[in-house]
Amino acid sequence: MRLSRSFIPTLRETPAEAQIASHRLMLRAGLIRQTASGIYAWLPAGLRVLRRISQIVREEQDAIGAQEVLMPTLQPAELWKRSGRYDAYGPEMLRITDRHDRDLLYGPTNEEMITDLFAGGVKSYRELPQVLYHIQWKFRDEVRPRFGVMRGREFLMKDAYSFDIDTQSAIASYRRMMLSYLRAFQRIGVKAIPMRADTGPIGGDLSHEFIILAPTGESSVFYDGRFEQQDWRAEAVELADPESLQRFFMRMTSLYAATEDKHDEAAWHDVEPALRREGRGIEVGHIFYFGTKYTQSMGVAVSGPDGAMVHPEMGSYGIGISRLAGAIIEASHDEAGIIWPMPVAPFRAGILNLKPGDAACDSVADALYEAAPDDMLLDDRADRAGVKFADADLIGHPVQLVVGPRGAASGTIEVKWRASGERTEMPLDAAVALIASLR
Amino acid sequence: MRLSRSFIPTLRETPAEAQIASHRLMLRAGLIRQTASGIYAWLPAGLRVLRRISQIVREEQDAIGAQEVLMPTLQPAELWKRSGRYDAYGPEMLRITDRHDRDLLYGPTNEEMITDLFAGGVKSYRELPQVLYHIQWKFRDEVRPRFGVMRGREFLMKDAYSFDIDTQSAIASYRRMMLSYLRAFQRIGVKAIPMRADTGPIGGDLSHEFIILAPTGESSVFYDGRFEQQDWRAEAVELADPESLQRFFMRMTSLYAATEDKHDEAAWHDVEPALRREGRGIEVGHIFYFGTKYTQSMGVAVSGPDGAMVHPEMGSYGIGISRLAGAIIEASHDEAGIIWPMPVAPFRAGILNLKPGDAACDSVADALYEAAPDDMLLDDRADRAGVKFADADLIGHPVQLVVGPRGAASGTIEVKWRASGERTEMPLDAAVALIASLR
Repeated sequence: MRLSRSFIPTLRETPAEAQIASHRLMLRAGLIRQTASGIYAWLPAGLRVLRRISQIVREEQDAIGAQEVLMPTLQPAELWKRSGRYDAYGPEMLRITDRHDRDLLYGPTNEEMITDLFAGGVKSYRELPQVLYHIQWKFRDEVRPRFGVMRGREFLMKDAYSFDIDTQSAIASYRRMMLSYLRAFQRIGVKAIPMRADTGPIGGDLSHEFIILAPTGESSVFYDGRFEQQDWRAEAVELADPESLQRFFMRMTSLYAATEDKHDEAAWHDVEPALRREGRGIEVGHIFYFGTKYTQSMGVAVSGPDGAMVHPEMGSYGIGISRLAGAIIEASHDEAGIIWPMPVAPFRAGILNLKPGDAACDSVADALYEAAPDDMLLDDRADRAGVKFADADLIGHPVQLVVGPRGAASGTIEVKWRASGERTEMPLDAAVALIASLR
Repeated sequence: MRLSRSFIPTLRETPAEAQIASHRLMLRAGLIRQTASGIYAWLPAGLRVLRRISQIVREEQDAIGAQEVLMPTLQPAELWKRSGRYDAYGPEMLRITDRHDRDLLYGPTNEEMITDLFAGGVKSYRELPQVLYHIQWKFRDEVRPRFGVMRGREFLMKDAYSFDIDTQSAIASYRRMMLSYLRAFQRIGVKAIPMRADTGPIGGDLSHEFIILAPTGESSVFYDGRFEQQDWRAEAVELADPESLQRFFMRMTSLYAATEDKHDEAAWHDVEPALRREGRGIEVGHIFYFGTKYTQSMGVAVSGPDGAMVHPEMGSYGIGISRLAGAIIEASHDEAGIIWPMPVAPFRAGILNLKPGDAACDSVADALYEAAPDDMLLDDRADRAGVKFADADLIGHPVQLVVGPRGAASGTIEVKWRASGERTEMPLDAAVALIASLR
C-alpha cells in the first residue's frame, strides 16, 4: 500500500486513556480505534494483523483434521436453558430481547450451540472423532473494560470443540489440539508455554492455559528454561497414534511450568537451578476436556459399536485472536514502537522514500514497491524524513528500506532491521532479492 | 476433504419449513442449519462458499483502491442519535442495553460509524478520495424471517463507503464501484444487471440495484438482451480518468433495464423487439450516492484546497454476501440439487469411490484426491452407489469423478459435468490433468 493514500492514521501523542503499551501502540500506530467502551474498529493495518494471526491458527487447526464452520454471533436463550447455564452465567452475558420478545444473547462461547449442531448431523460412532471450530466475534460484558483489545467486550476468538466416543479417544483429541496450539504460537513468533489450569465455568477435569511470556504480563509465571528451546514444529508426532501423542504430552508436561496461583514450591525446587525461569505472562489460549457434561445435560448421544447409545465425550479449545494482537505487542516492543514478528506483521517491510518528487528516489522506491506491493507499505508522503523514520519504527515493520537522494543516485538502499537496529547498505537488486526472501 | 470424516450432513427428506429452492437445497446439502428464527450456522461446505464469494468481492474491491477495515457488530446508540437515524429507524433495528444501562444496537449498516472513524483520521483534501469497506455480520430484525439466508436476520454483508472532496470526484467513485461490482458478479458466475433504484432510508439522489436473473426471483425485470453478452472484465476503463469512467457508465446505462416498479412502457417500446427480455430477478447489491447527508449532520469536514473546511461527499455500497449464496442457487439448480458455478463451488470436484475397500478403487480415488485435496470432496463412505450419485448431484460439484471397480481395474475414470450432464471416460493421468485445470 502507498501510505499517502492509506487509512493508517498514526498519532504523535499518547492517548490518555491507554494504560498499557499495547493499547497505546495500537492506537498510535493506527491499528485500531475505540467505537464504544471495550469495543474497537480494526483499521487497515490492524485488520492485516488480525487476518495473519487467524490464518496461521486456521492452518494449524486444519492440520490436525479440525473442520471450520461459522456459527452466528446471536444465540437463542433456550439453548442455554437446556444446559442449565443461562441462569448460572452472570452479568457478563449480554442478554437481548428481539421484536417478538424472544430472548437472545450475544454468544460468549459456543458449547451449547455446537453440541446442538453436532446432534443434528452425527448419528454413529463411525463418524467420530469430529473436531469443529470457528473464528467468530464474541461478547462478554466486562464490568470494567480496559487494556484495549486485551480485555475488550467484543472480541474475536477461535473456539474448537471435539467429540469422541470414549475417554481415551477424547484425551488423544485434547493432546492433538495442544500440539496444534504450540505449533501455531511458534509460527506466529511468540513463546507460549502450556500451564496446568483450573477449569472454571466450562467445567471438566483437565485444562491447560497457554501463556505468552511478556515483561508486562498480568501474572507471574515459573517455568523450566528448556521450554524456550522447544521446536514444536519439528516434533515427530503421529497424529493418529495415541501412544505417540502420549509420549509428546509426557515430554511436555514433565517440564515444570505454573502461574503463581498453581505454583508449587516443592516441585520448583526439584528443577535444576540453572534452568529455573521466573517471568510474567499473558493468557492467550485455554483448552478443556470435560467429558459428557454437555452431551448428558442436553441429551445428545450416538449409536456405539455394540448398538447402545453413547454420550460423546467433549473438549473445548479457545484462542483469543484479537487479544493475541495485543499480547504480541506486549511481548515485542520498545520505546519507539512495535517490533512485529515477521509472520504477523501488517507489512513485511516499509519503504521510506525520503524525497518524493526526486526522480531517482521515486524510481528506486517504486522498483522496491513493485517487488511485492501487497506486502510493502511505501511511505510516499510529502513529510520530513524524521516523521517517516518515527512512523516506520512505530508501525513496527520488521525491515525498513530507506531510499534517500544520495543513495538513490547511485542505486543504493539502506536496510534497517527493526528488532536488532542493525543497518546495512545494499544495491537495488540485492534489496529486491531480500524482499522476496522475507517470510 | 474425505466425506466419511466430514461434517456435511446431507438430508434425504425436504425440510417442511423451506419454501424456496435455495433454502431447501442449502439445508439438504448440509451447507447451513437454522439456530434461531432467521439465524443460521454455516457448516463446512457452506462456509467454503461464503469465503469464496467474500474473496472474489474483496479482490475486486481492492482492485479499485478500496481499503478493508473491520468495524464491530455492536454500535453505540449515541452515534445514530448524532445523524438523527436512531429514532427514525424502525423495529428492524435490534436495540440492546448493556449492564451499565448504556444503549447499544446491532449494526444494520455503518454510515454513521465509518463517518466517525473517517473524521478521526483524515484532515485534508489531499488524503481524498478514501474508500473503506468491511465484510461483517449485520442484523435486521425482520418481522417475518423466511427464505433461509435470502431474508435472514443475522446476515453477512460487504459494505463500502467513499469520501470525496467534490461531486465530480464522488460520481467517479460511484462509477468505479459499479464496475467493481459488475466484475465481481461476473467472476462469481452469475448474470447481474444494474437497475436504477430508489434511495430509501439511506437517502441521496443516485442509486442502482444489482439484480441477479433467476426464474424464482422476487420481482419481474425488463432488460436489454445485450446485457447478457457484456464482458465487464474486458472493459478497458481507466480507473483514474473520470471521462473514461463516464463513457463506461453511459454505455451501461444506455441499455434498458428496470424492475417492475421502475418499468417505463414508453422507453421499453424503444428497445428493439428482438432484444427485449423479461424475467425475474433477485437483488444482491445496492449502491448509493448521497453527497454530504452524513458529513453535514455529523459535522465532519476536511480542509479544502483554498483552506476552507469542506464536508466530504459520500456514497455507500452494499453486497449481501450470505444472500448471494442463496441467490446463486436460485439461479442455478435443478431437481437433483445445486449446480455451482466453478468459482464459488465448495469443492471443484467430487470423487465418488463406488467401492471403498477395493484395492484398485482406493488406489485410483486416492490418486485423484491427492492431486488437490483442498479442492476435492472424496466420497469414501461405505454406502450404496446410488446414495453417492444423489449426494454429489445435491451438493452440486461442477465435476464428478466416478471411480467404479470395473473402470478402476483398467485405470479408467468416468467424468460427469454437473451443468450439462455430459459424461466421458478418461485415463487417470488425463483426470489428474483435468483437476489441475479446474478454475
